[in-house]
Amino acid sequence: MKPSDQSTPAAHAVRTVQRRQVGAEATDFRDDLAVEEPLEIRVEGRSVAVTMRTPGHDDELAAGFLLTEGVVARRADIVAIKPVAAKQGGGVEPNILDVRLTRPDAVDFARLTRHVFTASSCGLCGKATLAAVQGRTAGLGPDEGPKVKTAILQGLPATLAAAQATFQKTGGLHATGLFTADGTLLVSREDVGRHNAVDKVIGHLLLRGSIDPSSVILLVSGRVAFEIVQKALAARIAVVAAISAPTSLAVDLARSGGLTLVGFLRDGRMNVYAGADRLMDVSPN
Amino acid sequence: MKPSDQSTPAAHAVRTVQRRQVGAEATDFRDDLAVEEPLEIRVEGRSVAVTMRTPGHDDELAAGFLLTEGVVARRADIVAIKPVAAKQGGGVEPNILDVRLTRPDAVDFARLTRHVFTASSCGLCGKATLAAVQGRTAGLGPDEGPKVKTAILQGLPATLAAAQATFQKTGGLHATGLFTADGTLLVSREDVGRHNAVDKVIGHLLLRGSIDPSSVILLVSGRVAFEIVQKALAARIAVVAAISAPTSLAVDLARSGGLTLVGFLRDGRMNVYAGADRLMDVSPN
Repeated sequence: MKPSDQSTPAAHAVRTVQRRQVGAEATDFRDDLAVEEPLEIRVEGRSVAVTMRTPGHDDELAAGFLLTEGVVARRADIVAIKPVAAKQGGGVEPNILDVRLTRPDAVDFARLTRHVFTASSCGLCGKATLAAVQGRTAGLGPDEGPKVKTAILQGLPATLAAAQATFQKTGGLHATGLFTADGTLLVSREDVGRHNAVDKVIGHLLLRGSIDPSSVILLVSGRVAFEIVQKALAARIAVVAAISAPTSLAVDLARSGGLTLVGFLRDGRMNVYAGADRLMDVSPN
Repeated sequence: MKPSDQSTPAAHAVRTVQRRQVGAEATDFRDDLAVEEPLEIRVEGRSVAVTMRTPGHDDELAAGFLLTEGVVARRADIVAIKPVAAKQGGGVEPNILDVRLTRPDAVDFARLTRHVFTASSCGLCGKATLAAVQGRTAGLGPDEGPKVKTAILQGLPATLAAAQATFQKTGGLHATGLFTADGTLLVSREDVGRHNAVDKVIGHLLLRGSIDPSSVILLVSGRVAFEIVQKALAARIAVVAAISAPTSLAVDLARSGGLTLVGFLRDGRMNVYAGADRLMDVSPN
């Protein structure tokens, strides 16, 4: 199974829109919008989550979601990720994915749906105390994760921006990228949901199976809330960087979990909120 | 019951952070971060949702959430919104609110928790087809809602920005404001969760009880996804404006629900995605 070998629905849609400007005539134009559609994730035929996402790389989204929920740990745990058959007319339901597992009996469905229920408003909110998360996911040791040159970090936002195909049309998407410690972009994904973009790159890593998560850098285009750090920790990614601000709980979880968390990575500067020991201020050359 | 008469925990928190700049020494400074903490909402003692929110105006958040979920419709439906008693040591649990209702027997808990379960990743995602939402919430007629001068709309972002107390410190919050049709700010709220900021202003309106929702304008500081339009529709707010982009589904729901939806409200321009009939291009004077 290669990542995202399924057919991919459009990630943007065109609508006729009126542009108004004070002192000028209203004009119609055709605007590209980020597509938002529900995706239902099933495990062995049972519904475990519905998320509003931008279509595309849905298998990665499902794989990343299940990894960060603790349902799968490695590529070999997944047998197949496929859209379910349509109720009528043949074909498939592109917005419903079913994940088949190597060891379906090992899944604690009651715990999983309880998780997702208590999660409610935003991804993984329900497991919402540091204690609960820490009980579920081991922290990263100081020797885990890459050493990263700050000059390399500085260059990542421009690389991610250059890779953002849909955002440039719609202005409506969050982007996430995974990079090697020397600044090479491994994969970038965009989504209307910040957490979905993160799940997609994590799922890509899982499905590809050949890259050690603890060797990479995760970059998000916006802010960093608790949930993003929680997902990184579950995936064993040790360095998280963001172009904008983190929340208090994101910082606290990064510190207690041994992650490196960098925010406000822009304008030639960065704020280091946790794990400064992995950063090196040496010349990039 | 006045809105937000409960004690309000801090909305920002200070952490010592390292600032790095290529070619300069790393320096420590004390940074203000947006606080993110879980809030559990209970109805008559039963847990119905957990959301990651910025503390403050939690009673409004609970009221707005229950309004947009269809559990309450007016102020008189709510008897009290109070934090539960702490398990030990007296005092209260500031992160758990219990809502007591005038008619508790009328609540369909199975339907409500099923909603919130299927919602999973982001607010109200689960009810995630237009058909499902339309079945639950009546659309707005063309004669409902205010007529708004485009020049008044243009001025709203600056008014909201001036009212944003926490954002200026932390850079990490979404802001939402409610305005009259003549541009007067009624209330503004900030939160790490976009949907929470919207629930808070909607809850404020509900608890205050003296303003007709269909007379106001809702402005959000960022993007508009499906869920924001769904919440506006549930609250009978007819005009929604955003400083950034809407998603495809937000536009489609606004059109089918009879809302006015304005995006990219900045730089002296705006895009009108739905309901242009409520906008007037006349001089603001």
